[in-house]
Amino acid sequence: MSRILTVAAAQLGPIQKSESRAVAVDRMVRLMERAHKRGAELVVYPELALTTFFPRHYHADRAEADRWFEESMPSNETAPLFAAARRYGIGFHLGYAEIAQEADAAGLVRRRHFNTAILVSPAGEILLKYRKVHLPGHAEFDPNRAVQHLEKRYFEVGNLGFPVIRAPMGGQPGVNMGMMICNDRRWPEAWRVLGLQSVELVMVGYNTPSTNQAAAGFEAHHLRVFHSHLSVQAGAYQNATFAVAVAKAGTEDGCELFGHSIIVNPQGEIMAQATSWDDELITADCDLDMCRLGRTTIFAFDKHRRPEAYGRITGQVGAVEPPVWSKP
Amino acid sequence: MSRILTVAAAQLGPIQKSESRAVAVDRMVRLMERAHKRGAELVVYPELALTTFFPRHYHADRAEADRWFEESMPSNETAPLFAAARRYGIGFHLGYAEIAQEADAAGLVRRRHFNTAILVSPAGEILLKYRKVHLPGHAEFDPNRAVQHLEKRYFEVGNLGFPVIRAPMGGQPGVNMGMMICNDRRWPEAWRVLGLQSVELVMVGYNTPSTNQAAAGFEAHHLRVFHSHLSVQAGAYQNATFAVAVAKAGTEDGCELFGHSIIVNPQGEIMAQATSWDDELITADCDLDMCRLGRTTIFAFDKHRRPEAYGRITGQVGAVEPPVWSKP
Repeated sequence: MSRILTVAAAQLGPIQKSESRAVAVDRMVRLMERAHKRGAELVVYPELALTTFFPRHYHADRAEADRWFEESMPSNETAPLFAAARRYGIGFHLGYAEIAQEADAAGLVRRRHFNTAILVSPAGEILLKYRKVHLPGHAEFDPNRAVQHLEKRYFEVGNLGFPVIRAPMGGQPGVNMGMMICNDRRWPEAWRVLGLQSVELVMVGYNTPSTNQAAAGFEAHHLRVFHSHLSVQAGAYQNATFAVAVAKAGTEDGCELFGHSIIVNPQGEIMAQATSWDDELITADCDLDMCRLGRTTIFAFDKHRRPEAYGRITGQVGAVEPPVWSKP
Repeated sequence: MSRILTVAAAQLGPIQKSESRAVAVDRMVRLMERAHKRGAELVVYPELALTTFFPRHYHADRAEADRWFEESMPSNETAPLFAAARRYGIGFHLGYAEIAQEADAAGLVRRRHFNTAILVSPAGEILLKYRKVHLPGHAEFDPNRAVQHLEKRYFEVGNLGFPVIRAPMGGQPGVNMGMMICNDRRWPEAWRVLGLQSVELVMVGYNTPSTNQAAAGFEAHHLRVFHSHLSVQAGAYQNATFAVAVAKAGTEDGCELFGHSIIVNPQGEIMAQATSWDDELITADCDLDMCRLGRTTIFAFDKHRRPEAYGRITGQVGAVEPPVWSKP
């Protein structure tokens, strides 16, 4: 039996600070209609898809930022998306800011904040939830930055690991699916943890500025898309998986996001690429059997990996200085 | 003070099975002469640079393969290379097959075989030794393969980890240098272990066929160079390091090796690329201060890495199947 899954990446143009969730959801429903016309069985939306990328805005009182978060999913505002999925028989991946009433490490139930993505079946069942592990940016207002990046202020580090689920999708009885969010895609550790669970399709939403706004140094603007694609293509190749990386794009609250959403095959090749800075749908037929070649030859992990040489990866957080050579 | 190190990649054309070490060393000395004329301070030679890539040849009696190995370094045959390095004041990296009289895990001293690389100072001191960890291929004759790949037959897995040393090189009082060999470059674990030791320059020698000769499936030939470059560029970018990846190229014993040696900067950009299938020297001025941007911003490991989510990387060898979703 053919294992082709038709996947759509639904890139979103900018969502301004003043725009409501209803505006965003309406655009997302229209993209799902187009996905249906193009035969897609799964639509992947970006990170924090319901609002502007609010971590660029500083709230001295963190609670004021709660208005960017969802207290329930679905909600009245997101229900049209779930209804459209049911109508068209399409699964979807959605990134949003989540408030969870949940026990923390100390066992205390409280309001917790995460940068979250969910995978939803056409029937509206939540098949998988992921909470962003690699939060970039900073926690306090940084006067040296042209634009703030306050993810470390507004979100806790994700506490669900990098889960993979085997679930029905489209015409396929079982697809191994995992997720990462934005900055995670630059970390080969995240890809490998998914690969070690036999992932076949990785969904990544992102909001990435066209310039590096940190004060620490200059990064050539023209390399920003290259770095994103390089990371996704290498991650897909080295873990023999398909990847769908979907952007919010264009000028949002005066800040340019680079777009260039892609669908990548297990050979690391780009199968489809968005080229606008606005709402745009790209699709590809993903033959999941293509994952087999890599994982049975060069990347047959059981034959070739040597964890005894990888101790530093889990044994230390930051980099250490190497020993200094001296004459014997 | 400027931290520019001028690095040369000395790609070698084919070395046929019938050719002696003296022929190979003579060609390598001539490449070092050219490196000297171009102001290089360090020359990087490929994996197993002294002979043909012998793991493609099957010896039923493993001991017969010992003639491809070095029992001492330097030896009479390799001494001209060390002499040239001294004459020109150039350091070098050399890959070779090593026989070591060394205790094994059981404490028994015996002849042990490794796929090895050394970093040598202009004065002939061995600054660093590395033994290949990710051995590809197979241990027994495989009648389904057009060409054998018997690295798992002839070599033990390297037992030195992925070491990094800070040593003087050229005009620099200290450069953080590490090594990997061939197939290692496809494994992000190897890059990360070097990155966690603040590596600034990774040297990689390789002998990679233009076709995947495993029986398990078809791999598009035109992607072979892409995969090699993708892995090196991603490894350099994600660990904020320079990388020099140096091939043996051309048709050797009837088997085509793809060449395309590259020097890559910490942004993942290719600074120089060999385009012949023969002996060829490429050079680049590597400003080691370029490593700083990545490691103080996006890849500030101490701020952003989350080893608690990476447990599978060291906790398991092969991939597991993910859980199957069921209706709640």
